[in-house]
Amino acid sequence: MPHIALDGDVPGLPSLLRFRPETAGPLSDLAEALLRGPGPLDRGERELIASYVSTLNDCRFCASSHGACAAVQLDGGMPLVERVHADPATAPVSDRLRALLRLAAAVQRGGHAVGDAEIAAARTAGATDVEIHDTVLIAAAFCMYNRYVDGLATVAPTDPRMYTQIAERLTTHGYTTVPPRP
Amino acid sequence: MPHIALDGDVPGLPSLLRFRPETAGPLSDLAEALLRGPGPLDRGERELIASYVSTLNDCRFCASSHGACAAVQLDGGMPLVERVHADPATAPVSDRLRALLRLAAAVQRGGHAVGDAEIAAARTAGATDVEIHDTVLIAAAFCMYNRYVDGLATVAPTDPRMYTQIAERLTTHGYTTVPPRP
Repeated sequence: MPHIALDGDVPGLPSLLRFRPETAGPLSDLAEALLRGPGPLDRGERELIASYVSTLNDCRFCASSHGACAAVQLDGGMPLVERVHADPATAPVSDRLRALLRLAAAVQRGGHAVGDAEIAAARTAGATDVEIHDTVLIAAAFCMYNRYVDGLATVAPTDPRMYTQIAERLTTHGYTTVPPRP
Repeated sequence: MPHIALDGDVPGLPSLLRFRPETAGPLSDLAEALLRGPGPLDRGERELIASYVSTLNDCRFCASSHGACAAVQLDGGMPLVERVHADPATAPVSDRLRALLRLAAAVQRGGHAVGDAEIAAARTAGATDVEIHDTVLIAAAFCMYNRYVDGLATVAPTDPRMYTQIAERLTTHGYTTVPPRP
Protein backbone atom coordinates (compact mmCIF):
# COMPACT_ATOMS: atom_id res chain seq x y z
CA MET A 1 0.00 0.00 0.00
CA PRO A 2 1.42 3.41 -0.92
CA HIS A 3 2.85 5.53 1.91
CA ILE A 4 0.78 8.58 0.84
CA ALA A 5 -2.76 9.02 -0.51
CA LEU A 6 -2.40 8.19 -4.22
CA ASP A 7 -5.08 7.39 -6.78
CA GLY A 8 -5.58 3.65 -6.20
CA ASP A 9 -6.45 2.98 -9.85
CA VAL A 10 -3.10 4.21 -11.16
CA PRO A 11 0.18 2.27 -10.64
CA GLY A 12 3.83 3.21 -10.27
CA LEU A 13 5.27 6.49 -11.45
CA PRO A 14 2.04 7.73 -13.09
CA SER A 15 0.34 7.74 -9.66
CA LEU A 16 3.06 10.10 -8.40
CA LEU A 17 2.88 12.35 -11.46
CA ARG A 18 -0.84 12.80 -10.79
CA PHE A 19 -0.27 13.46 -7.08
CA ARG A 20 2.21 16.31 -7.66
CA PRO A 21 1.73 17.97 -11.08
CA GLU A 22 4.31 20.65 -10.15
CA THR A 23 7.15 18.14 -10.46
CA ALA A 24 5.47 15.88 -13.06
CA GLY A 25 6.40 18.22 -15.93
CA PRO A 26 10.19 18.23 -15.48
CA LEU A 27 10.23 14.51 -14.60
CA SER A 28 8.34 13.65 -17.80
CA ASP A 29 10.43 16.02 -19.91
CA LEU A 30 13.60 14.42 -18.54
CA ALA A 31 12.40 10.90 -19.39
CA GLU A 32 11.48 12.05 -22.90
CA ALA A 33 14.89 13.68 -23.45
CA LEU A 34 16.80 10.70 -22.06
CA LEU A 35 14.88 7.87 -23.68
CA ARG A 36 13.50 9.36 -26.91
CA GLY A 37 15.25 12.69 -27.57
CA PRO A 38 18.07 13.30 -30.05
CA GLY A 39 21.10 11.17 -29.23
CA PRO A 40 23.48 8.53 -30.58
CA LEU A 41 22.07 5.56 -28.64
CA ASP A 42 19.11 3.70 -30.15
CA ARG A 43 15.88 4.11 -28.23
CA GLY A 44 15.82 0.38 -27.53
CA GLU A 45 19.37 0.51 -26.14
CA ARG A 46 18.42 3.39 -23.84
CA GLU A 47 15.35 1.56 -22.55
CA LEU A 48 17.53 -1.51 -21.97
CA ILE A 49 20.01 0.51 -19.89
CA ALA A 50 17.08 2.01 -17.93
CA SER A 51 15.42 -1.34 -17.28
CA TYR A 52 18.72 -3.04 -16.39
CA VAL A 53 19.51 -0.39 -13.76
CA SER A 54 15.95 -0.80 -12.47
CA THR A 55 16.50 -4.53 -12.00
CA LEU A 56 19.69 -3.76 -10.05
CA ASN A 57 17.62 -1.44 -7.85
CA ASP A 58 14.92 -4.14 -7.57
CA CYS A 59 12.26 -1.75 -8.88
CA ARG A 60 9.62 -3.99 -10.43
CA PHE A 61 7.47 -1.25 -11.94
CA CYS A 62 10.35 0.48 -13.76
CA ALA A 63 12.16 -2.74 -14.72
CA SER A 64 8.98 -4.22 -16.19
CA SER A 65 7.70 -1.14 -17.98
CA HIS A 66 11.05 -0.08 -19.47
CA GLY A 67 11.95 -3.71 -20.14
CA ALA A 68 8.75 -3.93 -22.19
CA CYS A 69 9.69 -0.68 -24.00
CA ALA A 70 13.11 -2.17 -24.81
CA ALA A 71 11.54 -5.42 -26.04
CA VAL A 72 9.29 -3.52 -28.48
CA GLN A 73 12.26 -1.63 -29.93
CA LEU A 74 15.02 -4.26 -30.04
CA ASP A 75 15.29 -7.07 -32.59
CA GLY A 76 15.80 -9.68 -29.88
CA GLY A 77 12.53 -8.77 -28.14
CA MET A 78 11.76 -9.90 -24.59
CA PRO A 79 14.10 -12.93 -24.67
CA LEU A 80 17.04 -10.56 -25.23
CA VAL A 81 15.82 -8.18 -22.50
CA GLU A 82 15.57 -11.07 -20.03
CA ARG A 83 19.08 -12.27 -20.84
CA VAL A 84 20.49 -8.78 -20.32
CA HIS A 85 18.64 -8.40 -17.03
CA ALA A 86 20.02 -11.77 -15.89
CA ASP A 87 23.62 -11.15 -16.96
CA PRO A 88 24.84 -8.58 -19.50
CA ALA A 89 28.25 -10.29 -19.60
CA THR A 90 26.83 -13.32 -21.42
CA ALA A 91 23.87 -11.72 -23.26
CA PRO A 92 24.04 -11.52 -27.09
CA VAL A 93 24.64 -7.76 -27.38
CA SER A 94 27.40 -5.76 -29.09
CA ASP A 95 30.66 -5.21 -27.20
CA ARG A 96 29.84 -1.49 -27.13
CA LEU A 97 26.43 -2.02 -25.49
CA ARG A 98 27.91 -4.57 -23.07
CA ALA A 99 30.53 -2.02 -21.98
CA LEU A 100 27.84 0.65 -21.56
CA LEU A 101 25.74 -1.72 -19.43
CA ARG A 102 28.80 -2.37 -17.25
CA LEU A 103 29.24 1.41 -16.91
CA ALA A 104 25.56 1.77 -15.96
CA ALA A 105 25.96 -0.89 -13.26
CA ALA A 106 28.86 1.08 -11.77
CA VAL A 107 26.73 4.25 -11.70
CA GLN A 108 23.98 2.28 -9.93
CA ARG A 109 26.46 1.43 -7.14
CA GLY A 110 27.46 5.10 -6.82
CA GLY A 111 29.13 7.97 -8.66
CA HIS A 112 32.55 7.13 -7.24
CA ALA A 113 32.15 3.50 -8.34
CA VAL A 114 32.79 4.60 -11.93
CA GLY A 115 36.51 4.15 -12.49
CA ASP A 116 38.92 4.53 -15.37
CA ALA A 117 38.40 0.82 -16.15
CA GLU A 118 34.71 1.19 -17.05
CA ILE A 119 35.41 4.28 -19.16
CA ALA A 120 38.40 2.72 -20.93
CA ALA A 121 36.40 -0.43 -21.71
CA ALA A 122 33.59 1.66 -23.20
CA ARG A 123 36.02 3.64 -25.36
CA THR A 124 37.84 0.50 -26.53
CA ALA A 125 34.46 -0.89 -27.61
CA GLY A 126 33.85 2.27 -29.66
CA ALA A 127 31.68 4.39 -27.35
CA THR A 128 31.87 8.17 -27.84
CA ASP A 129 31.85 10.88 -25.16
CA VAL A 130 28.15 11.55 -25.76
CA GLU A 131 27.30 7.84 -25.49
CA ILE A 132 29.25 7.62 -22.22
CA HIS A 133 27.52 10.77 -20.96
CA ASP A 134 24.06 9.57 -21.91
CA THR A 135 24.62 6.15 -20.34
CA VAL A 136 25.76 7.69 -17.05
CA LEU A 137 22.80 10.09 -16.98
CA ILE A 138 20.22 7.42 -17.85
CA ALA A 139 21.63 5.15 -15.13
CA ALA A 140 21.70 8.02 -12.62
CA ALA A 141 18.17 9.11 -13.52
CA PHE A 142 16.81 5.62 -12.92
CA CYS A 143 18.46 5.63 -9.50
CA MET A 144 16.09 8.58 -8.95
CA TYR A 145 12.94 7.19 -10.58
CA ASN A 146 13.38 3.81 -8.86
CA ARG A 147 13.77 5.40 -5.41
CA TYR A 148 10.79 7.69 -6.06
CA VAL A 149 8.55 4.80 -7.13
CA ASP A 150 9.54 2.40 -4.32
CA GLY A 151 10.32 4.97 -1.62
CA LEU A 152 6.64 5.90 -1.67
CA ALA A 153 5.60 2.25 -2.10
CA THR A 154 3.56 2.75 -5.27
CA VAL A 155 1.62 -0.18 -6.70
CA ALA A 156 3.36 -2.43 -9.27
CA PRO A 157 1.02 -4.60 -11.38
CA THR A 158 1.90 -8.30 -11.51
CA ASP A 159 0.24 -9.02 -14.90
CA PRO A 160 2.86 -8.73 -17.71
CA ARG A 161 0.12 -7.61 -20.12
CA MET A 162 -0.20 -4.36 -18.16
CA TYR A 163 3.44 -3.55 -18.95
CA THR A 164 2.97 -4.44 -22.61
CA GLN A 165 0.12 -1.90 -22.73
CA ILE A 166 2.24 0.71 -20.96
CA ALA A 167 5.09 0.09 -23.42
CA GLU A 168 2.80 0.39 -26.44
CA ARG A 169 1.64 3.79 -25.19
CA LEU A 170 5.11 5.07 -24.25
CA THR A 171 6.87 3.92 -27.43
CA THR A 172 4.08 5.43 -29.55
CA HIS A 173 3.19 8.65 -27.71
CA GLY A 174 6.23 9.28 -25.50
CA TYR A 175 6.65 10.34 -21.91
CA THR A 176 5.12 13.79 -21.96
CA THR A 177 1.58 12.78 -22.88
CA VAL A 178 -0.65 12.32 -19.83
CA PRO A 179 -2.07 8.79 -19.92
CA PRO A 180 -5.85 8.36 -19.73
CA ARG A 181 -7.32 7.22 -16.40
CA PRO A 182 -8.05 3.46 -16.48
CA MET B 1 40.06 14.79 -14.40
CA PRO B 2 36.63 14.40 -16.00
CA HIS B 3 35.95 11.17 -17.90
CA ILE B 4 34.69 13.09 -20.96
CA ALA B 5 35.78 16.34 -22.67
CA LEU B 6 34.14 19.04 -20.52
CA ASP B 7 34.89 22.76 -20.39
CA GLY B 8 37.81 22.87 -17.94
CA ASP B 9 36.84 26.29 -16.57
CA VAL B 10 33.42 25.14 -15.33
CA PRO B 11 33.02 22.82 -12.31
CA GLY B 12 30.48 20.18 -11.25
CA LEU B 13 26.98 19.98 -12.66
CA PRO B 14 27.23 23.19 -14.73
CA SER B 15 30.01 21.60 -16.81
CA LEU B 16 27.61 18.77 -17.69
CA LEU B 17 24.71 21.10 -18.46
CA ARG B 18 26.95 22.89 -20.97
CA PHE B 19 28.13 19.60 -22.51
CA ARG B 20 24.60 18.33 -23.23
CA PRO B 21 22.08 21.17 -23.57
CA GLU B 22 19.37 18.68 -24.62
CA THR B 23 19.13 17.30 -21.08
CA ALA B 24 20.16 20.50 -19.29
CA GLY B 25 16.68 22.01 -19.59
CA PRO B 26 14.70 19.28 -17.81
CA LEU B 27 17.47 18.82 -15.20
CA SER B 28 17.44 22.54 -14.39
CA ASP B 29 13.63 22.74 -14.40
CA LEU B 30 13.50 19.79 -11.99
CA ALA B 31 15.96 21.42 -9.58
CA GLU B 32 13.95 24.66 -9.71
CA ALA B 33 10.65 22.86 -9.01
CA LEU B 34 12.13 20.77 -6.20
CA LEU B 35 14.17 23.40 -4.42
CA ARG B 36 12.38 26.68 -5.14
CA GLY B 37 8.93 25.91 -6.60
CA PRO B 38 5.60 26.04 -4.73
CA GLY B 39 5.60 23.63 -1.78
CA PRO B 40 5.16 23.35 1.98
CA LEU B 41 8.85 22.93 2.87
CA ASP B 42 10.95 26.08 3.31
CA ARG B 43 13.57 26.56 0.63
CA GLY B 44 16.30 26.30 3.27
CA GLU B 45 14.88 22.99 4.50
CA ARG B 46 14.82 21.61 0.96
CA GLU B 47 18.42 22.65 0.34
CA LEU B 48 19.39 21.02 3.65
CA ILE B 49 17.76 17.72 2.63
CA ALA B 50 19.54 17.94 -0.75
CA SER B 51 22.94 18.68 0.77
CA TYR B 52 22.55 16.03 3.50
CA VAL B 53 21.79 13.33 0.90
CA SER B 54 24.79 14.58 -1.10
CA THR B 55 27.05 14.10 1.95
CA LEU B 56 25.72 10.54 2.30
CA ASN B 57 26.63 9.97 -1.36
CA ASP B 58 30.02 11.61 -0.74
CA CYS B 59 29.41 14.14 -3.53
CA ARG B 60 31.54 17.14 -2.61
CA PHE B 61 30.29 19.48 -5.33
CA CYS B 62 26.58 19.00 -4.53
CA ALA B 63 27.03 18.82 -0.75
CA SER B 64 29.06 22.03 -0.73
CA SER B 65 26.94 24.04 -3.15
CA HIS B 66 23.55 23.04 -1.71
CA GLY B 67 24.95 23.25 1.83
CA ALA B 68 25.89 26.84 1.05
CA CYS B 69 22.37 27.45 -0.36
CA ALA B 70 20.89 26.04 2.88
CA ALA B 71 23.19 28.19 5.02
CA VAL B 72 22.05 31.36 3.23
CA GLN B 73 18.38 30.53 3.82
CA LEU B 74 18.37 29.03 7.34
CA ASP B 75 18.65 31.04 10.56
CA GLY B 76 21.39 28.76 11.91
CA GLY B 77 23.63 29.40 8.90
CA MET B 78 26.63 27.20 8.11
CA PRO B 79 27.11 25.98 11.72
CA LEU B 80 23.62 24.45 11.59
CA VAL B 81 24.26 22.92 8.15
CA GLU B 82 27.51 21.36 9.39
CA ARG B 83 25.79 19.87 12.44
CA VAL B 84 23.04 18.34 10.26
CA HIS B 85 25.61 16.92 7.83
CA ALA B 86 27.51 15.39 10.78
CA ASP B 87 24.46 13.94 12.56
CA PRO B 88 20.81 14.98 12.07
CA ALA B 89 19.84 13.04 15.21
CA THR B 90 21.61 15.55 17.47
CA ALA B 91 21.39 18.72 15.35
CA PRO B 92 19.18 21.57 16.63
CA VAL B 93 16.33 21.20 14.12
CA SER B 94 12.59 20.64 14.59
CA ASP B 95 11.33 17.11 15.19
CA ARG B 96 9.52 17.34 11.85
CA LEU B 97 12.68 18.23 9.91
CA ARG B 98 14.66 15.59 11.81
CA ALA B 99 12.11 12.93 10.81
CA LEU B 100 12.23 14.11 7.18
CA LEU B 101 16.04 13.93 7.18
CA ARG B 102 15.80 10.36 8.51
CA LEU B 103 13.36 9.58 5.68
CA ALA B 104 15.77 11.11 3.15
CA ALA B 105 18.60 8.94 4.48
CA ALA B 106 16.45 5.84 3.92
CA VAL B 107 15.76 6.91 0.33
CA GLN B 108 19.51 7.38 -0.21
CA ARG B 109 20.05 3.71 0.76
CA GLY B 110 17.32 2.61 -1.67
CA GLY B 111 13.61 2.80 -2.39
CA HIS B 112 12.88 -0.38 -0.48
CA ALA B 113 14.81 0.95 2.54
CA VAL B 114 11.88 3.28 3.29
CA GLY B 115 9.70 1.44 5.77
CA ASP B 116 6.57 2.14 7.73
CA ALA B 117 8.79 3.29 10.63
CA GLU B 118 10.22 6.28 8.73
CA ILE B 119 6.80 7.28 7.42
CA ALA B 120 5.11 6.91 10.83
CA ALA B 121 7.85 8.96 12.52
CA ALA B 122 7.40 11.74 9.97
CA ARG B 123 3.62 11.77 10.44
CA THR B 124 3.92 11.75 14.25
CA ALA B 125 6.20 14.79 13.96
CA GLY B 126 3.52 16.57 11.91
CA ALA B 127 4.65 16.00 8.31
CA THR B 128 1.94 16.01 5.64
CA ASP B 129 1.65 13.75 2.58
CA VAL B 130 3.06 16.49 0.35
CA GLU B 131 6.02 17.05 2.69
CA ILE B 132 6.71 13.31 2.72
CA HIS B 133 6.42 13.20 -1.08
CA ASP B 134 8.68 16.19 -1.60
CA THR B 135 11.31 14.82 0.79
CA VAL B 136 11.39 11.46 -0.98
CA LEU B 137 11.65 13.10 -4.40
CA ILE B 138 14.38 15.57 -3.35
CA ALA B 139 16.39 12.71 -1.83
CA ALA B 140 15.84 10.53 -4.91
CA ALA B 141 16.76 13.38 -7.26
CA PHE B 142 20.06 13.98 -5.47
CA CYS B 143 20.86 10.28 -5.84
CA MET B 144 20.69 11.14 -9.55
CA TYR B 145 22.53 14.49 -9.54
CA ASN B 146 25.30 13.07 -7.28
CA ARG B 147 25.85 10.05 -9.54
CA TYR B 148 25.83 12.26 -12.63
CA VAL B 149 28.39 14.68 -11.17
CA ASP B 150 30.76 12.03 -9.77
CA GLY B 151 30.10 9.28 -12.32
CA LEU B 152 31.63 11.56 -14.95
CA ALA B 153 34.30 12.80 -12.50
CA THR B 154 33.54 16.49 -12.82
CA VAL B 155 35.75 19.00 -11.04
CA ALA B 156 34.80 20.06 -7.48
CA PRO B 157 36.44 23.30 -6.27
CA THR B 158 38.16 23.10 -2.88
CA ASP B 159 37.80 26.81 -1.99
CA PRO B 160 34.65 27.33 0.14
CA ARG B 161 34.28 30.86 -1.30
CA MET B 162 33.46 29.32 -4.69
CA TYR B 163 30.43 27.60 -3.15
CA THR B 164 29.35 30.80 -1.41
CA GLN B 165 29.37 32.52 -4.82
CA ILE B 166 27.41 29.65 -6.38
CA ALA B 167 24.86 29.82 -3.54
CA GLU B 168 24.45 33.58 -3.90
CA ARG B 169 23.65 33.13 -7.57
CA LEU B 170 21.31 30.14 -7.12
CA THR B 171 19.34 31.59 -4.18
CA THR B 172 18.94 34.87 -6.06
CA HIS B 173 18.39 33.80 -9.66
CA GLY B 174 17.37 30.14 -9.35
CA TYR B 175 18.35 27.03 -11.23
CA THR B 176 17.04 27.80 -14.70
CA THR B 177 19.27 30.78 -15.44
CA VAL B 178 22.42 29.82 -17.30
CA PRO B 179 25.42 31.01 -15.25
CA PRO B 180 27.99 33.24 -16.97
CA ARG B 181 31.26 31.64 -18.01
CA PRO B 182 34.01 32.42 -15.46
